[in-house]
Amino acid sequence: MSRRALVPPEQTHDNILDVAERLFREVGYGKTTVADIAQALGMSSANVYRFFASKADIHNAIFTRTVAGLHAALRDAAGAPGSAADRLAGVIHTSHRLHRDLFTDQRRVFDMVEAAMAENWEAIEAHVAAVQAIIAGVIADGIAAGEFGPGDPDGLAAAVLDGSCAFMHPTMIAECADKPDREAHLARLLWLVIEGLRNHDRTPMP
Amino acid sequence: MSRRALVPPEQTHDNILDVAERLFREVGYGKTTVADIAQALGMSSANVYRFFASKADIHNAIFTRTVAGLHAALRDAAGAPGSAADRLAGVIHTSHRLHRDLFTDQRRVFDMVEAAMAENWEAIEAHVAAVQAIIAGVIADGIAAGEFGPGDPDGLAAAVLDGSCAFMHPTMIAECADKPDREAHLARLLWLVIEGLRNHDRTPMP
Repeated sequence: MSRRALVPPEQTHDNILDVAERLFREVGYGKTTVADIAQALGMSSANVYRFFASKADIHNAIFTRTVAGLHAALRDAAGAPGSAADRLAGVIHTSHRLHRDLFTDQRRVFDMVEAAMAENWEAIEAHVAAVQAIIAGVIADGIAAGEFGPGDPDGLAAAVLDGSCAFMHPTMIAECADKPDREAHLARLLWLVIEGLRNHDRTPMP
Repeated sequence: MSRRALVPPEQTHDNILDVAERLFREVGYGKTTVADIAQALGMSSANVYRFFASKADIHNAIFTRTVAGLHAALRDAAGAPGSAADRLAGVIHTSHRLHRDLFTDQRRVFDMVEAAMAENWEAIEAHVAAVQAIIAGVIADGIAAGEFGPGDPDGLAAAVLDGSCAFMHPTMIAECADKPDREAHLARLLWLVIEGLRNHDRTPMP
């Protein structure tokens, strides 16, 4: 029995992700091969392929792990004390900051997300749906409390998310990395959106 | 005196832009050189450089010409009859459709805009400022008429524009080219934004 066989499979699985994530960041997603990842782990490419069908598959798993941390932070913001308006603003500001930290402090991660958009579209869609569900929960609370006007929480959350694109989307984050006052601009937009959600004349969303 | 000398300079200027625009679309911005443009016009590169300092300069002039047409359409929408809310929705929908036609029907133009972002940032900023001014004019009318709550029209217009990013920005337009129901999603967002502008409790924007 070789020494390597003593490592539990779930540990090898996580080790592959850790090493791949580091290589994707340091070398770039495009320039890293499955053979590079295997070599860094002292294993064969065939062994990596026992865990992941492709580099895209590895990438997808790293992406899922990263967004799980992001969703946990957003759920914390959504569950904070305060009005629905404050909690909604907290969720969007937190999401903006976490996206900004991901896409400006670690420029290589940007390549990864570009790759994800090309290769793992379902993972991105699942991520967006999860964020939208967190926002919809806060909006539903606001509607139930009479703080927001009536409406379909999911549709309203989708509109809020569409409206937040400039402060969430990786490409937009990267493009605006050098612009000052992004948080103040987001606060201004959130003021407008929250005034809209209050919807004092109680007209239904079309 | 050569035959070419009979062409008025302003005509040569426009001819360079026409031919360059066609080549940028057909061949791509990156792959087209000033020498290619000169050759297509049967003139020397030196003659092209009498009119434009660089390919980026030519690109900038084409960009300016294209957005002038776009601004004219937006001013028409802003000046249409109806409430400020209807006119604002008209401006944003028109802008979305014109951007979509530019960036999905002519995929090569997308390269041009990417190049513009890298090379002619001032032209982009001037374009955004012009669109923001048109939106601010409609919002100012709405505030003056009591249709919208009080506020700084420029700041509110900037927030509306930030919020419309998903439906305006070339990268976003290209990314969403295959998604259905974009106009319905924009209508939903505009409903939220316009409810916000109505700002029935008349709280000032932060």
